[in-house]
Amino acid sequence: MKALLLVAHGSRRAASNDEIRALTARIRDTGPEFDHVDCAFLELAEPSIPEGIRAAIRAGARQLVVLPYFLSAGRHVSEDIPGAVNSVRSEHPDIDISLAPYLGASPEIARLLVMQATEAGSRP
Amino acid sequence: MKALLLVAHGSRRAASNDEIRALTARIRDTGPEFDHVDCAFLELAEPSIPEGIRAAIRAGARQLVVLPYFLSAGRHVSEDIPGAVNSVRSEHPDIDISLAPYLGASPEIARLLVMQATEAGSRP
Repeated sequence: MKALLLVAHGSRRAASNDEIRALTARIRDTGPEFDHVDCAFLELAEPSIPEGIRAAIRAGARQLVVLPYFLSAGRHVSEDIPGAVNSVRSEHPDIDISLAPYLGASPEIARLLVMQATEAGSRP
Repeated sequence: MKALLLVAHGSRRAASNDEIRALTARIRDTGPEFDHVDCAFLELAEPSIPEGIRAAIRAGARQLVVLPYFLSAGRHVSEDIPGAVNSVRSEHPDIDISLAPYLGASPEIARLLVMQATEAGSRP
């Protein structure tokens, strides 16, 4: 079973965390690529990254992709998230846990921004 | 002339601001939709949003789209950026300045995340 764990920063503002949960639900509806899709938070919200990984494994995941929902490659992306993932990896050497590039690294972002700006600019 | 101004939060970490400038250059290369593409920062980096808007107008923009490069709809997106845009709007009533939805509001984000996670999960 393949699982995707979307990792966001987490916020004191509940609406921001709910926005992540709503996006997670939309990812679930996107297609059949992943059997299990959930989110986790680096801080300030639940579940934590280790808890999210363990929940996916309990749900049956044998292959798990962790994707940081971040725009820039700061310390959170380069150190904190890999550290949290590695802390669980050693508990489950039989599970294939990979870390995807953070969202901001996507080569598709530029095209998506142009598309979004073009739509906004053509509204009456 | 049509211009796009990408607005990021700005960071104390110079590499994060440079990442935004590199993305801005990639947007420039994406296609002919905008004649002028530049970036501005809400805080901690230059140019500011009003400075960025004024520079685009000086460069000849008659139509300007401001796009917040943010993932969640917090105070920055709902108040601070619109406030900064409005402060310049009154100086240039002849210029069509519109505010695009923030990146996180894009309906394309879910599909993009699945794509990115699928690629990461299929790496050997």
